[in-house]
Amino acid sequence: MTDTHAEPVPIPGPRNIEWVGDAETGFLRLLDQTVLPNQVVYLECKDVQSVWDAIKRLSVRGAPAIGVAAAFGCVLGAQHGGFDPAAEHLATSRPTAVNLFWAIDRMKRVTPRTPEALLDEAKAIHTQDAAMCQCIGEHALDLIQDLLPRPQASNTKPLTLLTHCNAGALATGGIGTATSPMYLAQQRGMPVRVFADETRPLLQGARLTAFELGAAGIDVTLICDGMAGQVLREGKVDVVITGADRIAANGDAANKIGTYPLAVMARHHNIPFLVAAPSSTFDMSIADGDAIPIELRAAEEITEGFGSRTAPSGVKTYSPAFDVTPAELITAIITERGVIRPVNTEQVRSVVGATK
Amino acid sequence: MTDTHAEPVPIPGPRNIEWVGDAETGFLRLLDQTVLPNQVVYLECKDVQSVWDAIKRLSVRGAPAIGVAAAFGCVLGAQHGGFDPAAEHLATSRPTAVNLFWAIDRMKRVTPRTPEALLDEAKAIHTQDAAMCQCIGEHALDLIQDLLPRPQASNTKPLTLLTHCNAGALATGGIGTATSPMYLAQQRGMPVRVFADETRPLLQGARLTAFELGAAGIDVTLICDGMAGQVLREGKVDVVITGADRIAANGDAANKIGTYPLAVMARHHNIPFLVAAPSSTFDMSIADGDAIPIELRAAEEITEGFGSRTAPSGVKTYSPAFDVTPAELITAIITERGVIRPVNTEQVRSVVGATK
Repeated sequence: MTDTHAEPVPIPGPRNIEWVGDAETGFLRLLDQTVLPNQVVYLECKDVQSVWDAIKRLSVRGAPAIGVAAAFGCVLGAQHGGFDPAAEHLATSRPTAVNLFWAIDRMKRVTPRTPEALLDEAKAIHTQDAAMCQCIGEHALDLIQDLLPRPQASNTKPLTLLTHCNAGALATGGIGTATSPMYLAQQRGMPVRVFADETRPLLQGARLTAFELGAAGIDVTLICDGMAGQVLREGKVDVVITGADRIAANGDAANKIGTYPLAVMARHHNIPFLVAAPSSTFDMSIADGDAIPIELRAAEEITEGFGSRTAPSGVKTYSPAFDVTPAELITAIITERGVIRPVNTEQVRSVVGATK
Repeated sequence: MTDTHAEPVPIPGPRNIEWVGDAETGFLRLLDQTVLPNQVVYLECKDVQSVWDAIKRLSVRGAPAIGVAAAFGCVLGAQHGGFDPAAEHLATSRPTAVNLFWAIDRMKRVTPRTPEALLDEAKAIHTQDAAMCQCIGEHALDLIQDLLPRPQASNTKPLTLLTHCNAGALATGGIGTATSPMYLAQQRGMPVRVFADETRPLLQGARLTAFELGAAGIDVTLICDGMAGQVLREGKVDVVITGADRIAANGDAANKIGTYPLAVMARHHNIPFLVAAPSSTFDMSIADGDAIPIELRAAEEITEGFGSRTAPSGVKTYSPAFDVTPAELITAIITERGVIRPVNTEQVRSVVGATK
């Protein structure tokens, strides 16, 4: 799955997913992301239902992390003598999560279905996800150093990245996707600094990205989404990097609402705009971004975002959950299989495959 | 001061500033903007101190509105036998508000300093501010109709404007600056629609603009700041229009943080980006935007937006209150003295004067 030979970077902050103990009596420990950043609470999931609940209520979130958690959930099923009903039940927790089904299918192919064998497979899924993140980070950091005027290693000015939402360690089994070059740079002693958009309406940047980078000791500065323009204009940022939720065959990338303005402004300021995402994010059945459906969210996320009402009662809202950044604004897409640059259908096919 | 001959448009929503009664016994009624949009509360200011308090605690805000309120405050001073101490005291309420000093100086030139004469002058200041807004609105609406592919009057598709922060009726003695073409279009029966950015961190768009336009019966849709890109990309918006806090001699305009990204995106989408501001906003002593100082605000406005903490304790923030939009991204600046287009030093001088 990956081409890296290095050991994955240990995540310096709190672990979002961890198996504690042995296969027969162990349990799954999940960081409860619903109470971040005010409380750091771990859920001890000792049966299938508690894993199902954790996925359902977004205690664990991010497509790769959900897949890993479900795989460990299958082990808990086997402990209590019911792998098949466990697998079936877990698949209903987030019906649109592709990685969930992929991980459960992979667990179904394990023989014999003993807790030991299943735990080995779940740990393999976890480790491979971490290796995928690591590999994206290696490619990303190499590319960033190529793109910058001078190699950062010989420079005392910190490499400064701006990101949006949370495509971080909390969303994966490893060091995240957009965050992976940040963790790698830190590990290698490169001075690194991050601006994190708070990411309205749900504030994943404030609640999650600022939390995980801060907990890992990375120099992170939180800004409101509308401040990114001034930050770029002041020359503070070397590279903008985000994740993606779904990428079309031509490289048009859907990501959290607010990503597209960053791409437009990065172009205006002649700063690289990078997308970091596993190859599983590509949907080769979609020719371009116009065909990516945009989910509309409830008004309350805008009007009562902070627990109290901040807009007139009954005001009309428009709340797209995602926006689409066209390929021509993306300097490169970084996958675990390699870097897509320039971003177009031919390059996408050559890196992630035509039939994926 | 203005060149319009029409009667000012009455503000269809709640009045922010109103004198109630006669000069001898009347009082100033102010809409308390600190409790909007959840409560519509009027403050009855019957002495100088209550006007001072209202200005100080931002119950009345917006440079023109502060000037008008202070002028009426001087009448209350005269009612109670102390014009001079009243004028002196009111001048300390918002030490950086240029319109405050301008209005008080104008009141000082009234003779005799009877409540009647002073009330006449205060009402003149109010009416002239309303006329200024009206005049900006006329120029803006004419310009917008010139800029659009087809005249909106012969078009069933509503004229759709996107705005940021509150450069509205609530900030002035009339129909606002950026909002003035919206109110005028509505008055003339033109179909009009507005997208209002919520404007983090202080949410003036959600709390004030969405409130005042909605109260006036204008079709307003509230979005988060990061959603404007997708809204523009979907072709929903004809014109972006904002106010300005300070404009340099070359037309570079400082306005609420988050304005500059709109200008960059409007250019990217080939949509006009307009700034509506009275000529008093120009600071001809400043050659360009680089010399405009940018106030930095406290972390809590980002991390504890509305009563609850939404970011990790102790996280570093960067919170510029304003950004600067360079003249070359501004299609036109609309003042009560006329339209500056193209935006450059020569045109600024020819419209607002070289020595202003």
